[in-house]
Formats: sequence, structure tokens, C-alpha cells
Amino acid sequence: MASQAAKRVLVVAGLGNGTGTGAATAHLFAKKGYSVALIARGAATVDKVAEEINSAGGHAASFAVPSYSHDDLTAAWTAIHAKFPKPEYIIRAAVFNVSHGVWKPFLDVTPQDVQDCLQTSVAAAFSFSRGAILAFKENDIEPTNGKRGALIFTGATASLRGNVITSAFAAGKFGTRALSQSLAKEFSKENIHVAHSIIDGAILTERSKSMRPVEWQQDNDLRLNPESIAASYLYLVNQDRSAWTWELDLRPAHEKW
Amino acid sequence: MASQAAKRVLVVAGLGNGTGTGAATAHLFAKKGYSVALIARGAATVDKVAEEINSAGGHAASFAVPSYSHDDLTAAWTAIHAKFPKPEYIIRAAVFNVSHGVWKPFLDVTPQDVQDCLQTSVAAAFSFSRGAILAFKENDIEPTNGKRGALIFTGATASLRGNVITSAFAAGKFGTRALSQSLAKEFSKENIHVAHSIIDGAILTERSKSMRPVEWQQDNDLRLNPESIAASYLYLVNQDRSAWTWELDLRPAHEKW
Amino acid sequence: MASQAAKRVLVVAGLGNGTGTGAATAHLFAKKGYSVALIARGAATVDKVAEEINSAGGHAASFAVPSYSHDDLTAAWTAIHAKFPKPEYIIRAAVFNVSHGVWKPFLDVTPQDVQDCLQTSVAAAFSFSRGAILAFKENDIEPTNGKRGALIFTGATASLRGNVITSAFAAGKFGTRALSQSLAKEFSKENIHVAHSIIDGAILTERSKSMRPVEWQQDNDLRLNPESIAASYLYLVNQDRSAWTWELDLRPAHEKW
Amino acid sequence: MASQAAKRVLVVAGLGNGTGTGAATAHLFAKKGYSVALIARGAATVDKVAEEINSAGGHAASFAVPSYSHDDLTAAWTAIHAKFPKPEYIIRAAVFNVSHGVWKPFLDVTPQDVQDCLQTSVAAAFSFSRGAILAFKENDIEPTNGKRGALIFTGATASLRGNVITSAFAAGKFGTRALSQSLAKEFSKENIHVAHSIIDGAILTERSKSMRPVEWQQDNDLRLNPESIAASYLYLVNQDRSAWTWELDLRPAHEKW
Repeated sequence: MASQAAKRVLVVAGLGNGTGTGAATAHLFAKKGYSVALIARGAATVDKVAEEINSAGGHAASFAVPSYSHDDLTAAWTAIHAKFPKPEYIIRAAVFNVSHGVWKPFLDVTPQDVQDCLQTSVAAAFSFSRGAILAFKENDIEPTNGKRGALIFTGATASLRGNVITSAFAAGKFGTRALSQSLAKEFSKENIHVAHSIIDGAILTERSKSMRPVEWQQDNDLRLNPESIAASYLYLVNQDRSAWTWELDLRPAHEKW
Repeated sequence: MASQAAKRVLVVAGLGNGTGTGAATAHLFAKKGYSVALIARGAATVDKVAEEINSAGGHAASFAVPSYSHDDLTAAWTAIHAKFPKPEYIIRAAVFNVSHGVWKPFLDVTPQDVQDCLQTSVAAAFSFSRGAILAFKENDIEPTNGKRGALIFTGATASLRGNVITSAFAAGKFGTRALSQSLAKEFSKENIHVAHSIIDGAILTERSKSMRPVEWQQDNDLRLNPESIAASYLYLVNQDRSAWTWELDLRPAHEKW
Repeated sequence: MASQAAKRVLVVAGLGNGTGTGAATAHLFAKKGYSVALIARGAATVDKVAEEINSAGGHAASFAVPSYSHDDLTAAWTAIHAKFPKPEYIIRAAVFNVSHGVWKPFLDVTPQDVQDCLQTSVAAAFSFSRGAILAFKENDIEPTNGKRGALIFTGATASLRGNVITSAFAAGKFGTRALSQSLAKEFSKENIHVAHSIIDGAILTERSKSMRPVEWQQDNDLRLNPESIAASYLYLVNQDRSAWTWELDLRPAHEKW
Repeated sequence: MASQAAKRVLVVAGLGNGTGTGAATAHLFAKKGYSVALIARGAATVDKVAEEINSAGGHAASFAVPSYSHDDLTAAWTAIHAKFPKPEYIIRAAVFNVSHGVWKPFLDVTPQDVQDCLQTSVAAAFSFSRGAILAFKENDIEPTNGKRGALIFTGATASLRGNVITSAFAAGKFGTRALSQSLAKEFSKENIHVAHSIIDGAILTERSKSMRPVEWQQDNDLRLNPESIAASYLYLVNQDRSAWTWELDLRPAHEKW
């Protein structure tokens, strides 16, 4: 009974500049009644997104981290449990939306670039996933969808293909994808749902807007709206236990692929 | 204006014994306000599903075909256009749910088995798709999702992997998948959405029930509910133009993969 | 003892215009001491390649077929067994190099195009494979490589990806690939080796020469030499039982992919 | 002229216990006339393999590294250039055979396990590749195969699939594969050949022998001989510019997959 009365919590890691997939997902789940725990570097962005949600009538809390190290992410999970304790709250969904982008010819890629990609896209994914899996394992199964919880990773074209200037980026994104598949297989038998999206195109954010013409910004056929990605994440979380998805691709209608 | 007032039509090909993915998709879309055109071999099944939908307050019509040949499928599309004429109706969604299953050691596979798999899973998919694409190209873009129409193919584990007893079945399912990818790439620029599902597990139908213990029938972690697959198809149709999916997998929580 | 003294036979199906992969493979294996059985449509081409091999000191025989139907291919295998009887001969290798190319926008693809692709790339592959597998099962294991026989399929970019103008071609090539994977899994335990190549670029043949500038013809970085593909097929046949390959890709150095 | 007279050099990183793929590759290339530079942790193993090669009439030199860090690998490349200077020597082939294996349920995987997998399988691969690419770029094109050099990575089943106990291992191996694909695409236009093998089964080494019954050790259908993998690497290096391979799988005849 407790769990049905409990308020569902979404944990999102990775907010970019606060106008992309992570923020849109937080907003959408908040509108659907989830409390939202926001993890990201840069307190300013985390706080801004939390305030936007709260001022729109939602419920969000900031968990800014100094880095995506194992210790910092573990501390964030501890703080989240403290802020959203059982039985009032129950952590039902988690989204790992963190990655470090490097687009350079191979010989320009520095050891630090490689480290950044591996630590941010892969090692941090392990640490974040550990928090999510440990949280979900404590849950009972939600009657509506037959899950203890759902963990979603944001992937990219570079999750599937190494291209000319993506050696470091793809090395990280391939690694995240491997993790997501292992987790999907290991924990599905405990009714924990792990999914991976392939975002195969450019996302409309304040940053990408600043680099493209207005026509691109306004043409829904050319780039992904973060709100549409968020809608897919909500769909994945709501999929029931009899038919759930590990991986789907998402791209704008006119994307060449 | 006409198109907004028009009633949306779903065309489904392939109903099995009337209790699986095709029927569940027809039922769900009917509940969502679509008129449904049902194509399948065996008038008895087609009529039964149509009656179920109509007696539940939906709107369905039967287009039983003697075979899945090009001529028979083309005739079915002609009849569908006659039954659901513009501007009262607008064909917005099509699902190709037809396949011919052969599970035999390679040396037991007959030339007829190969023909059946290729004709039913691939050639019929070409003929059906032609009808769908031609219909969609006449549509204007629907404001809600930015599409002229959506075409979904039901795939299987055998769409991705040839296994020991699936040479003929997989040859057909690989072929359907190739077609779906070509169509997705060619017609996305006309805002026609083509998607392909990988059903990676057994589906609960009257037939599969008859071959399995009650525990399996009742355990949502072990097999796919056709209604859950249908829910995914509805989700795919509703995805907007800025972020749509070509391929997703669907499996029960406890499926080993 | 018989098998070691026996002369090894290669069976090749598909010779195109007699200057591509099939012919190059026949020539190379003939140089390595194999007798070669040539199956193709068009007696002129088959006879020409056989004569070239024989006049170069090799041993080849023509098995022209009126079509790649099951009956015609089965008859060809019967004729090959008659021409190359045990114990003087032992059929050790088979190459299926047949496909029907269609490159058209989807709406220009005719039902006959679809039939041609499915019959030539898939149904004929089943019939040819049946002959090869049945022949190999009668063999003892060759001590040098630990195999009863090796069956190789020539694939293409379209074996892995459906592109805008390749719906029919890819549907066929995907199907061949599915078959090759099923066979590889089913018959490896009987030490029959099945492999599939992905030819990811244009091959230098008399036909492709006629359509391209001299620079392209002469630049080994831009197109595949059929002799180099043949060398890979020989390598595959010679791989030993402890480490053999199902699939490899082959492309010219400067191919973009 | 210099390059034709120059002695070809193979650089191998990763020797395990000195009885696996790395050592077998070094032995085979030495027999084919290459000088061999051996990089690995543990001077004892490196020296042992070098001595074996030298006492068999080959030419090998040890470059033991304290770790697979960027600095240590970069220093090893510097030492190799000093030991094998142009124009007497020309570095033509490089094999990255390093990985860190972790097979544990996800919740038992430690942050250190993740670091080890990422540093050894991915970051070290970047550092090693940098040395190889920089060396190859200085070469002229070898007339026999049309290459400046060839770089091969040893992959595994876990390069393609994340399984239940392979989250950390697969995260690393996926990353290596991504790198290899990026490099293959970026440097093929400079006639540098990059390839990736999928070793899809257990390899016969002194270590694997110690854990399995004699029947397994002696049955060539059950596990890969390192010498057979080495033969594939030699084949890859010898493939000519008109038809070379990025990826191939290798498995024993009786492996289930």
C-alpha cells in the first residue's frame, strides 16, 4: 500500500546548458507527477532547471556535483535518498544523459580527451547505474507497469558507429551502450527495465540554436526537439513488463542516414 | 480543413488466428477513433475481428484476401479506398503483420517452404507497402505529428539473427527488415514514417496458449501481450516528426537474450 | 586414404560476364589444384571461363543452367557428381556468387523485380546450399584444415543496409545473409564451414570498366580486384577448424564508409 | 629503394602469459622475416618470448612497460624507433592485443575494475594506435600490398554484446572497437589498414589449459589455437589495397553462437 501512495521520483543526471534532453525529461516527468532529482555539474544550471520546474508547480531538487566521479555520484545518490525518503517517496526512474563530446581528427585527440570521454560517458555511467540499480532493487513491483524501476541511457549516432572525427567520443558512447545492454540482461529478471536510445541527429538546444540559422531552428523535420525525446523516455518508463524495449533510435524526419 | 475533419483509417494486414498482434492493434486503434481496414487470408477470422470491433462501438471493415499475392493485395487496397473514400476518410496508418513461419533443420526445408517465406514475408510486404506509400503520398501532413502516414512492420528475433532451425523464416524476416529500412530512408523526406519492431519473444495468443502451461499464460514476465505490442505501435504512429523511430525491440521482462 | 589422394573440387555458381568474382575464384582455385565446376546461366560465359582455365593448364567443366530454379540447380549438382565422382574427386568448396541487382526508387520496383531478387539471391541460394551441404556431409574431414567442406556466399553493402534505391536488392541480399548464418550455426558442428563476405564497394569487371574512367580502372585504391576477393575466399577455405570466420567485409582502401 | 631493402618490423602490445595470441603472432611474423618489437607488462614474459623467437632464428626485442599508461606506451614507441631505425627497418605492422578481463555481476564490479577495463582496453589502445599511425604515416606505400602499414586489434565476443557478467569488460571492448572503426575510416585514405578481429571463443593458452580437461585442450573444434589467430592476422596484413577487411570473426568449429 505504501508504494502506491508514495510519490514517484525521477533522477536525471546531465543537464547540459539546461535546455536539452535532461531538462525536458525533468519537466515532462514533473508534469506527470514525479518528483525530480537533478544531478549535474554547475549549480547554476541545476538550480535554474529546478526553479523552472518548481515555479511551474512541479517538484524538483538540485543535486549539483563537483564532478562525475564515483564518489561525487555516490554522494549525490545518498543525498537524494535523504531528500526523498521512503515510504513517502519511491525512486522509479533514472536517466543518464551525461556525455563528453570530442570531435577531432585522431591525431589531435589528447590523452585528456580520451580520459574525459571514458570517465564521463562510461565510468560515470557505471557509478550512476549502481545508484539506480541499488535503489530499484529495494522497490516492490509497481502494479501499473510491472517494474521496480526504469533506467534510461541517452546514446548517439556514435554509440553505433565510429566515424572519422569521433574516435574518442564513440569510444565512450560504445562503452555506455555495452553497459546498458549488460544491465538490461542482468536486471530484467528482477523487473528492472534498462533502455538505451540512439539519438541520431542534432538536438535543438540554446547552444545548437546559436550555431545554426533560424530556418533550422524552426523546422521540426531537421532537428530533434528535446521535448520529443522526453516523450519517448516517458513512453519507455511506462512500457509494461510483457513488452519492453532495450533500444530505439530517434531522428528527425528529414535526417539522412 | 478537410483532413482534420476526416476520420483516420488504419490498415492492418495479417491477423493470424485473430487473437494476436494484428487484432490487438486493430482493437486499440479503433478505440482511439480510427476506422480499421482488416486484410487477411481467411474470411472467417477477418469477419470475426471486424465484428468484435464493431460490436464494441468501433468501426472496422473486412478485406479478406484469397492470398497475399501482389494482385490480391493491390485489389484489397483498391477496395479499401472505395470503402474509405476521401475526404471523409484519410488513411494514416498501416501495419504489416504478415509472416510465414517455418522452423526446420535446413535439410528438411522444402523449396515450397522457401517460397512461402519469401512470398509472404517479403513479396507481400512490397505489395502492401506500395499501397500504403501511394495512399500516404496523397495525404497532407497531419498537424499533430507532422506525418503524412506511418507504416509499421512486425519483425522477430529472426529479423536479426539466422539460427539453427530458422533458415527459411529468417531469410524472409531479414528481407522484410531490409525493405523497411529502405522505405524509412526514402520516404522520411516526404514525412512518411516507416518503423520496424523486433518482437523478441513469444506472443500470447490463443494458439500459443494451447501449447503452454497455465503458469506461462498468466505470467506477464514470460510472454508478450499483443495489447502491449499494439500500444507500442500506437506510440510509434504518434511520435512526432522531430524524433521518430525506425526500429525498436520488444520482449518480456524475463526473456533471456 | 582415398580422400587424400582425391582431387579437390570447387563448385562456383554465378559468373556474371565472366570477368568478376566468380571467374577469378575459379581461376585461383584451379591454380591451387582444384578441379572447378562452373554453374551459371548463359553457356557462352560458362564455356569461355572453363576454356580459359583449361587452356591455362587447369581443370574446369561447364554446367550451364537455363535458370537458377531449384530443379535446374539440383540437376546441375547431379551432373557435377557424375562428372567428378568419388573417390577420384571430392567436392570441398562451393561459392554462391549469384545475385540479381535492382537499383530503383521503391515505386519503380515492379513485382517482377522483387521476384527476381528473391528467387536469384535467396531461393537459388537455398537450392545451391542444399547441394553443397549434401555433398560435404558425405566427405570425411580433411586433415589439413579440419573441414568436410566450405561454402562461401558473396554479399554486398546491401546485405547489411537497406538504402534508398536498394529495397529489392537489399531484401534479397539480407535473405542470403540470414541463410548463411543459419547454415554456419547448424553445420559447423559437422565441420562444414559457411562464410559470408560483405563486398563493400565496386568490383573491377569488364562491365564496370565500361562505365568508368580509366583512372578508376587503374587505381587499386578505388575498386576491388576480383582476384583479391578470390584470394580472400581461398583464405577462408584454408582457415582451420580452430579459428574460422563466418563474416568479413572487403573494400578498397579509399572507399568511404 | 630503401624501403624495399628495409627489414619489416611488427610491433605487438600484449603478451598475456606468453602463450597466447600476442606471442603466436610474434612467432609467426618472425618466421615470415619480420623483426618483432614486444611490448607488455612484466619483463619476464616479454624477455621469454623474445628469447624464444631469437633462439628459433628470428629477431625480436623486448620493450617491457611498467604500465599501459600513455607515457609508458609513448616511451616504448620511442625506444622501438631507436632500436629499429630507418632506413634499415620499417615498421609495417602493429597488433594491439591488450585487454583487462573482468567477469562479475554488475554490483560486484568496483570503480577500480571499471578503471582497469577502460584504461587497458581503451585508453591504452588510443596511445598505442597513436604510435602506430605516426610510424605508418612516415612510410612509403609497400608495393606488395599497397599499404603504409597495418594495425590490428584483438576483439572478443564482448566487443559486440554486453552480457550478464561482462558489463566492465564489454564497456572496454566496445570502446576498442569504436576506436578501430574510426581509425579504419580516417586513415584508409592514407593507405593505412586498420582491422578488428572478434575472437568468439576461448583461446588455448597455458592458462586456459590449466582450467580445462585434457579433452578440451586436444580438441581443435572446441577452442582457438593462437597460431590460427596469428595466421589470420598475417592474412590481414597481407591483404592488398583493393580489398581489405575491417572486421572478421573467428571461432572454433563447434562453438555455439
